[in-house]
Formats: sequence, C-alpha cells, structure tokens
Amino acid sequence: MMNRHDFEALDAQDPLRPLKKQFVLPPGMVYLDGNSLGAQPFETAERVRAVVEDEWGAGLIKSWNDAGWISLPQRVGDKIARLIGARPGEVIVADSTSLNMYKVLSAALAEVQGRDAARRVVVSERSNFPTDLYIAQSVARQHGCELRLVEAPGQIPAALDATTAVLMLTEVNYRTGARHDMRALTAAAHAAGALAVWDLCHSAGAIEVDLHGADADFAVGCGYKYLNGGPGAPAFVWAHPRHAERFEQPLSGWLGHAAPFDFTPDYRPAAGVSRYICGTPAILATAALECGVDTLLAAEKLGGMPALRAKSLALTERFAALAESRCGRFGVRVVSPREAERRGSQVCLALDAPLQEAGYAVIQALIARGVIGDFRRGDPERLDAVPHILRFGFTPLYIGFSEVWDAVEQLHQVLASEEWRAPRFARKGPVT
Amino acid sequence: MMNRHDFEALDAQDPLRPLKKQFVLPPGMVYLDGNSLGAQPFETAERVRAVVEDEWGAGLIKSWNDAGWISLPQRVGDKIARLIGARPGEVIVADSTSLNMYKVLSAALAEVQGRDAARRVVVSERSNFPTDLYIAQSVARQHGCELRLVEAPGQIPAALDATTAVLMLTEVNYRTGARHDMRALTAAAHAAGALAVWDLCHSAGAIEVDLHGADADFAVGCGYKYLNGGPGAPAFVWAHPRHAERFEQPLSGWLGHAAPFDFTPDYRPAAGVSRYICGTPAILATAALECGVDTLLAAEKLGGMPALRAKSLALTERFAALAESRCGRFGVRVVSPREAERRGSQVCLALDAPLQEAGYAVIQALIARGVIGDFRRGDPERLDAVPHILRFGFTPLYIGFSEVWDAVEQLHQVLASEEWRAPRFARKGPVT
Repeated sequence: MMNRHDFEALDAQDPLRPLKKQFVLPPGMVYLDGNSLGAQPFETAERVRAVVEDEWGAGLIKSWNDAGWISLPQRVGDKIARLIGARPGEVIVADSTSLNMYKVLSAALAEVQGRDAARRVVVSERSNFPTDLYIAQSVARQHGCELRLVEAPGQIPAALDATTAVLMLTEVNYRTGARHDMRALTAAAHAAGALAVWDLCHSAGAIEVDLHGADADFAVGCGYKYLNGGPGAPAFVWAHPRHAERFEQPLSGWLGHAAPFDFTPDYRPAAGVSRYICGTPAILATAALECGVDTLLAAEKLGGMPALRAKSLALTERFAALAESRCGRFGVRVVSPREAERRGSQVCLALDAPLQEAGYAVIQALIARGVIGDFRRGDPERLDAVPHILRFGFTPLYIGFSEVWDAVEQLHQVLASEEWRAPRFARKGPVT
Repeated sequence: MMNRHDFEALDAQDPLRPLKKQFVLPPGMVYLDGNSLGAQPFETAERVRAVVEDEWGAGLIKSWNDAGWISLPQRVGDKIARLIGARPGEVIVADSTSLNMYKVLSAALAEVQGRDAARRVVVSERSNFPTDLYIAQSVARQHGCELRLVEAPGQIPAALDATTAVLMLTEVNYRTGARHDMRALTAAAHAAGALAVWDLCHSAGAIEVDLHGADADFAVGCGYKYLNGGPGAPAFVWAHPRHAERFEQPLSGWLGHAAPFDFTPDYRPAAGVSRYICGTPAILATAALECGVDTLLAAEKLGGMPALRAKSLALTERFAALAESRCGRFGVRVVSPREAERRGSQVCLALDAPLQEAGYAVIQALIARGVIGDFRRGDPERLDAVPHILRFGFTPLYIGFSEVWDAVEQLHQVLASEEWRAPRFARKGPVT
C-alpha cells in the first residue's frame, strides 16, 4: 500500500514541478478549485501595478498607443491560440464567455439559416453549463429556432438531423468532468449539415485542444479558470477562418468596426475575428489575463500542453483511485469517467446513501481543513441520476502528487471523524 | 487684462481644489483628456494590489463571499446612482457601454412594440457617438425597426411621432460638448408615446444628472471617463423602476439569473436591474472603478455634483473666453455652446481657414508641450458644418484655473510659433 512518501517521490521526479513556483498559494492550503478560479501568478501583481501606475497613471491616454493597449485583445488572443490549436490572428480576448457565446451562436445560426431556412434547432445537453443554455435560449428565440436538450452524451449523434442548425457543447462538463470527443462530434454535426460550437471553459489550459484538428466552427472559453487570469477575467473567442470574413456580429460595438477612429455613423465590421470586439477593451483585466496565460506558455519548453495533460491524467487517476480505496467504505464514489480520454482535469465524487445529502457539509469541513474543492447541487428529483457532487480540480501547473495524497487523507479524516455533522458546516448562503 | 496670477488666485479660493490630491498627475502635464480617460486615483493602486494579492492570491475562491465580490456590481452601482439622480438598487456595473446599450435598447423596443407594433423607428442624431449608432442599427434590425438620424438637435422634437419607438440620445455630445435638455426631450418622447434612452458617457461625474427628475426610461454610461475607473473600466446601466421588473434581457447570462447557483437549465431573470448582469463580473476592473467613483463621492461634503458643475462651468467658460481672446487671430473658434446650460464639461475648438486642416498637428504640438487634449476628425465632405475639432475636457475634480491659463498659453505659443508645421506632428497612426 502506498503512503505519502510515494507521492512525494512522484513530485520529486516530476519535471513540471518547478512551474508551481510561478504561483502564490497560501501555505498549507491544498487548492483544488482552479477549475473555478485559477491561482494568482506572482507576476500578475507587478504587471497590474505597472499598468495602473506606469501606463495609466503616468502615460494616461497616450498608453493606448505607447503601451500597446489598443492591440492587447489580439496579442493575448494569439497567446491563447497556442493552447487550443488555433493560429495567430484567429483568437481575441473580449467580454465574458456568455457574451462570446451570444456572438458565435448568432453568427452560426445566421450562417446556417442563410443557406437552409429549415434548420431551426440548436442541440445541446441538459447538463451543459447553464449560461450556455440561457444564451442559447435567447439566440434561438431571436432566430425563430428552438433549443433541444439531450439527457446523455450518447444521445447526441441521434439528435443531429436535417433540422439541426448548430451543435453547441462544452467539451468538458463542468459538473462531472466528462470530456466529449470534439473531433467525432464535430464530424457528426458536419455530416448532418450543422455547425459545431464549442465551449472550452474547462478545456483551455487544462487539456490538449486542437480546434483545427477537430475542424470545429466556433469556440469560446474562460479566462479565470485554467488560464489563471483572475476573478471575472475576460473570455476569448475563436472562429474558423472559413467563417471569419462573413459572420454576423449583433453586438456591433465601435472597437469591432473596421475603422473605429473614423467615427462614421454606419457599422462596418473589422476583418476576421477582431469584429468580435465590442466596446473598449478592459485593459487591467486583459493584462492580468496575459500573465495567467504566460504561466502556461512557460510550460512549452517542458513539453507544453501534452506534458501538462499527461500529468493531469496521472493526478486525477491517482486521486480517483485513492479516494475509492480509502474512502469507499463511507459511500464515496467517483462520478467522473475513469477512462483517461473521457476525462477532463477534474474528479467529482458523490456520496451514496445514507450520506447522499452530506456533500455540502463534507466540502465545508474539508475547506476548514485547508482542502479547497467545491460543491455542486444535484437534481433533488433524481439524485440517483444527477447526484450532489464534490468537485476537485487538478491544475497540473501548480498541483502535485503530495496534494493528491493530502486531499484524500483529509477527506478520510472528515468522514471517519464525522466532523462534517457539526452545525457550522450546514448550508447557509447561495454561493458555494 | 488677466494674467496667470489671477488664475492662480481663483485656484487659491476654490474650496474643491484639495480634491485634486486624490489623483496621480504627471508633473508639468496639463491633462485635459479626462473626458476620454480619467486620471488615476492614488487609492486605486493600493486597492487593486489588495484585490490581487489579498483577495485573489490569499483568499482565492472564498473571496466571492468573504470579500463581497458577488455583490460588487450592485455596490458600485449604488455609488454611481448617487451621481446621476438614481436610487439605491437601480444601477449595476456590468460589461461595456456598447453592451449595456444593446441591453436597454432591446428592452425598450420589446416593451414599446409589445403595446404598439406600429412603432418601428429609433430616433437619434447622426453626431451621436458611433457605438450607440452601431448597436442601434443591430437592435433595430433584430426588431424589424429602422434607425432614423437627425442632423441637428433642433430637429429632434419634430422627428418624434406615432411611429417612434425609442429616442436614443447621448446627453453631452462627444465631439462638441453640447448638452441636450434631458427633461424636455424625455417629455417630448413620452408625449409622442415613445421611450427615452440616455447615454451618460460624458455626463456621469461631469455634470449634474437627475434621471428621476427627467423621468428617463433607461440609461447607460461609461466608467473610464469622468468616473476615473481606468482604461476599459466596466460601464453602468440603469432602468427606471417602472420597467425594471418586466424588461427583456437577450444577453441572458448566468449571473443575471434569479438563482444562478441553482444551475437550472432554464433562464429566469433576477429581480430589477440585476438581470442586466450577464457573465461573471470583472472583479479587478470593478474594484478599480469603485476607487474612481469614490473620488467623486469625496466631493459630497464640499457640495457634491452641484459644486463640481459650477466649477466645471467656470473652467470651461474661462477657457473658451481666453482661447478666443488670445488665439482668435489665428482662426481659433469655440464650437461648444457658450450658454452654460447647453454645455457639458468640455470645450471644443475649431480652426478656420486657412488652418482648418491643421488641427491634428496643433494637438500633437500641444501634447509635446505637455497639454493633453485630443483631436476628432470632421466630415471631409463638409468641414464647414462638421469641422475638425480640438477637444479639451475639464474634470473639475483635478483641473484648476491655472491649468486653463497654461493650456491657452501653450496653444498660443504653438500657433504663434507655427511649430505645429514640423513634420513630426503630421498625422500617422489611426488612434488619436
């Protein structure tokens, strides 16, 4: 049987371990919530200081040119492109994931309906992250379309037919960590005559993504999870070049105009993906995001995303195996896929009866012990199919094997001691 | 005839002068571009440091609750409300001006068309800031409406009729600094059966705004101009309570949901203006904006916006008079209204023949001397009606009478010496 020394030995052998030094991590904390908010790179503090004091405070309006603010969305977009199999000039940083999903869904629907008005269905999953569904409901309504939700990933191919306009999926499920086969599902969408729109919120910086390899049509993703851009960091958006010169942009703000400083009254979209910029870019936040993306690019000389992905799979597999072997007797069950190819960079646990309602308190007790995961509510009507979930994200840039051991050890103690039953761990507020 | 000592004496008597100490301003610079990018409050550097290092770096995900991130858009919105005649709970900070205009125009059109489908016209001005026009074109197209632009403010009342759905105006014109009568034009829109949507980008923090007094319907505004929120700061949005519980939100992101952490698949809007939140709020940027807004609230004990407005009018009137008296012989002409009630917080100058094309170079020469204004192109087809403009913003929080004197003195020297003819001041890049 393995012990903590074995896990420390794995860290000692890990060539990626030095990358952790890029991050501020509170001493004694095991931070397994980088899938919700990435950790702070040391570099960000100095960079943000420089943007505030040197570029804004001293440079003032001149910094739009002199400090390169005006091209920051493209510059950071080019860096993100290297993480997701896109090419320079294809990605820009702008707004939020929700807003970027609105932009690309509008574009995709307009394009498909322009050639075949009978295609009026957006297909997605009921378990997709809700903001994608909310935005899709809105865009579908605007285009006289409907949103059709399947219950399980296996039902997706059969849901694609001559009425399908767009298949909209999140590559890695935010609850379960289950990963779709982007290439196969994009091919299925194309075979049915539809376009494929991908949300990379739990993919970018977490797993290898190859948008061109998968022949995807549009993609969006988040800056504050695995890209470590800070709370509410701007998001990114990508369009395949075959769409980039003709897609619509209903959020037609001035900085997505072909010549914004001509101040002409009629909108004319900028070339390529730059038309997805809407208002004036958020400079402080985009500069912070650049520092976060740089922490991932620092891995390029150590094997890049393939090496990070290999480590992530090793971490998640060991966590899953250890959680089951050490905590299975308390009803702990691994919900995330065990097959490597079908898993993102997180592991979700559920608790079986009689503890199926204990998840929230268990997470709170774990947090009190310095192990930060989070809780996602299941469907109260059918907890067997959609259980409450204890969610643990493993960011291979700054999480090591020792932390895997420590997290399971603390979980074991929380369950063995039953300390989670203390009133202070009971559910109070709405934010978990 | 007055001289610099007289202007220094005005500063010495100015009870608002100490407010300037809140800001970083480069030594020797006369910064008259706060209408494009407000100056940096000293407080912002420390606050942003604390958000990055203490709240994000040390607090990580827990700061959504513990540091109050989740309610930051409402908290800063409540502060902005005090500057614009709105009430607590009516304003939120979110996204950009362009995106917020999309939200409120969509809401306004849906509401008007819901009761009278024949109202299909959005009325605005050709000289409105282009992003408003671009967004209006898009929203109008989505609603089967048209955007009708008047050429001059005096034509607005006659353009309002039984086909009008919405009157969309920017209270203070970004080019000329001319101010609309919000109360009278809102009343005219209402009398015609239409709604009134106001853009406060050049009003909030610059002049007294009374949204309830004017009985406006919706408003949006900018965080990075007179609110001193930093480059690309988030914007704000307001809805009159009579609309707040029923308006549409096509940008239906998860944090505008009534219960975002229930993660339900169907969108249900939050109460009131909070439904205008879309994606996850930009915390770093919103915290910086709060510091900027606080610099204005610091004036409340010194008379608040009425006192700031009185100072602003004194500054702009003196600048206009001095520019004409000292530089009129070079063809300098004041384009902004001289009547106080019709002017915002900026003064725009044009150059008459033979120097009507010299404006860009004159601004560059002024900038080289440390006087920061900006240049806005006229309409090359009709420079007599829409001349090139030299634009000078007077932020009463940090600009004083001495700076008024110095700016005109430097302008005089640039024109008298003809140094603006040097090749280094000729137009090059697109950003001015």
